[in-house]
Amino acid sequence: MSNVTIHDVAKHAGVSATTVSRVMNNRGYISEEMRKKVHASMEALNYSPNQMARSLFKKETKFIGLIIPTTANPFFGELAFHIEHELVNQGYKLLVCNSIDREDNEIEYLKMLQENRVDGIIVGSHNIGIEEYDKISIKMVSVERKIHEDIPTIQSDNYYGGKLAAEVLVEEGCKNILCISGDPKVDTPANNRLVAYLDYMKELGYPTHKAYIPFNLSAEEKLEKVQALHIKEQGYDGVLAGDDVMASIVLNHLTKEGLNVPEDVKVVGFDGTETVRTLLPHLTTIEQDIKQLAKESVTTILKKIKDEPIDELKVVPVKLHKGTTA
Amino acid sequence: MSNVTIHDVAKHAGVSATTVSRVMNNRGYISEEMRKKVHASMEALNYSPNQMARSLFKKETKFIGLIIPTTANPFFGELAFHIEHELVNQGYKLLVCNSIDREDNEIEYLKMLQENRVDGIIVGSHNIGIEEYDKISIKMVSVERKIHEDIPTIQSDNYYGGKLAAEVLVEEGCKNILCISGDPKVDTPANNRLVAYLDYMKELGYPTHKAYIPFNLSAEEKLEKVQALHIKEQGYDGVLAGDDVMASIVLNHLTKEGLNVPEDVKVVGFDGTETVRTLLPHLTTIEQDIKQLAKESVTTILKKIKDEPIDELKVVPVKLHKGTTA
Repeated sequence: MSNVTIHDVAKHAGVSATTVSRVMNNRGYISEEMRKKVHASMEALNYSPNQMARSLFKKETKFIGLIIPTTANPFFGELAFHIEHELVNQGYKLLVCNSIDREDNEIEYLKMLQENRVDGIIVGSHNIGIEEYDKISIKMVSVERKIHEDIPTIQSDNYYGGKLAAEVLVEEGCKNILCISGDPKVDTPANNRLVAYLDYMKELGYPTHKAYIPFNLSAEEKLEKVQALHIKEQGYDGVLAGDDVMASIVLNHLTKEGLNVPEDVKVVGFDGTETVRTLLPHLTTIEQDIKQLAKESVTTILKKIKDEPIDELKVVPVKLHKGTTA
Repeated sequence: MSNVTIHDVAKHAGVSATTVSRVMNNRGYISEEMRKKVHASMEALNYSPNQMARSLFKKETKFIGLIIPTTANPFFGELAFHIEHELVNQGYKLLVCNSIDREDNEIEYLKMLQENRVDGIIVGSHNIGIEEYDKISIKMVSVERKIHEDIPTIQSDNYYGGKLAAEVLVEEGCKNILCISGDPKVDTPANNRLVAYLDYMKELGYPTHKAYIPFNLSAEEKLEKVQALHIKEQGYDGVLAGDDVMASIVLNHLTKEGLNVPEDVKVVGFDGTETVRTLLPHLTTIEQDIKQLAKESVTTILKKIKDEPIDELKVVPVKLHKGTTA
């Protein structure tokens, strides 16, 4: 840590510490000459104001915590980027916490963020409800995750997205569609994608087939689960994948099985991140507006910090990205 | 911020603040009964020690700043994940700064990190050398980037990686290979990939063709640049791409041009992130050991903070991931 204090600056400039403080905070009358003198001394000593001391005094840290499963996942990597970008524009800093979807990690992070007196927490982690959230007095919002009645939620229109995905498969002629979702014990708004699929199949009188593959498994483990679904033997003609990573695992599996996409089986993903749209432009997917999710999350947490009125629920529209896989 | 102080705990427990402090810091003799009483009061009041106050007193914050272009890129998203994971195991917290490869952002972040008295900074950003780095007294390491003589560097074996990539293309029969690199003005160790390619082509007496496409362009802009390379018309039979995202843009472009991979043109990428290996398992690429890069970066910055001896340069091995594109 830098050892230059406001007192060193005052001594160097030959003024009082109060004067330096006034210059720094633009408070009270200060002559232009005095201002220049103080700034010259700050420059000469390479003085950097101590925000930690300021935080203690002001009882605000301008720190926001973000708990997500991992920045290594394209969706959360992009979400973290956009959230940090929005925050820095508002003078806030981001503490990133990768929970790897583990409840014990999430509890540890909540404790750490509380001890570091963050002004707010944005939670985008996929763990099951934790009573620890009840104990925390810090302002919070959740993104793509319902945590608690008192915590506002920012989410994509998952129901509509699920319906769009099912619709495109049906329009392309599928009649025997498999829907792969994440861990059903995790109460996430993403579960509404499955609900929409079930509703739509029922409406059409089509059979329903659902499979659960947890989000937090490794790519290898997910592939094993996909193999165990016996897509070929079961004669599924369409797959609605939980997210684009899952869709790509299904696509690669189908190719190995000698099945043609979209001729034999059609596949729709979910998320539509920039990375996936660049790497797999041919993947038909439901595109989430990650930038908007980030923007709404930041707007809401900052309003909550300022005790301004907020919406308890913000739903961000999704859209279909039509590729060639369905 | 929580308003419960050590004094509130003391009052609730009917002891002195000094006693509470002793219990918290495990200092001096405290009876088991007293310890239980204090802990019960801390629990009852939901007391959380203020790390900000502790930081001021101890002159260490346990904060580490990480400046990278963006967590939205698979390589940096995974690097940020592993760095955060290593840091949290050592009791440190990560402030993520996405510079989007802009020098002005990088300068602003350095100022912010200094004002927040981070204990150290890991720099993985791709900007051109900034004199601001000279002014900063905070301990730093750079990862995949040479910033300054005094700042230790952790990097992949880019020269060997570049050679491996060129070798696999030559082994597969390529004789007219194009090498796409990032902005040559950015002095990054990744430039050694190009050097290795040039050396190897010279050794074989093969022609060399190089193109520069900056890392910080959007996917659309990169595609335009790739189109302008006229791969088909120039008769290139191999492409050594700067990274996997670039490789995937080249692959998609070649498909649109009606060229077959690997029959007409062979392609090798660089990075081999988990995301890319999952989404494009058929991509032949040079795999960086991102976990090891993160580990060495964290080990080095923590040693530097403790004034322990360190290596000025750590080179992490890379390996070939053989797919079907080359």
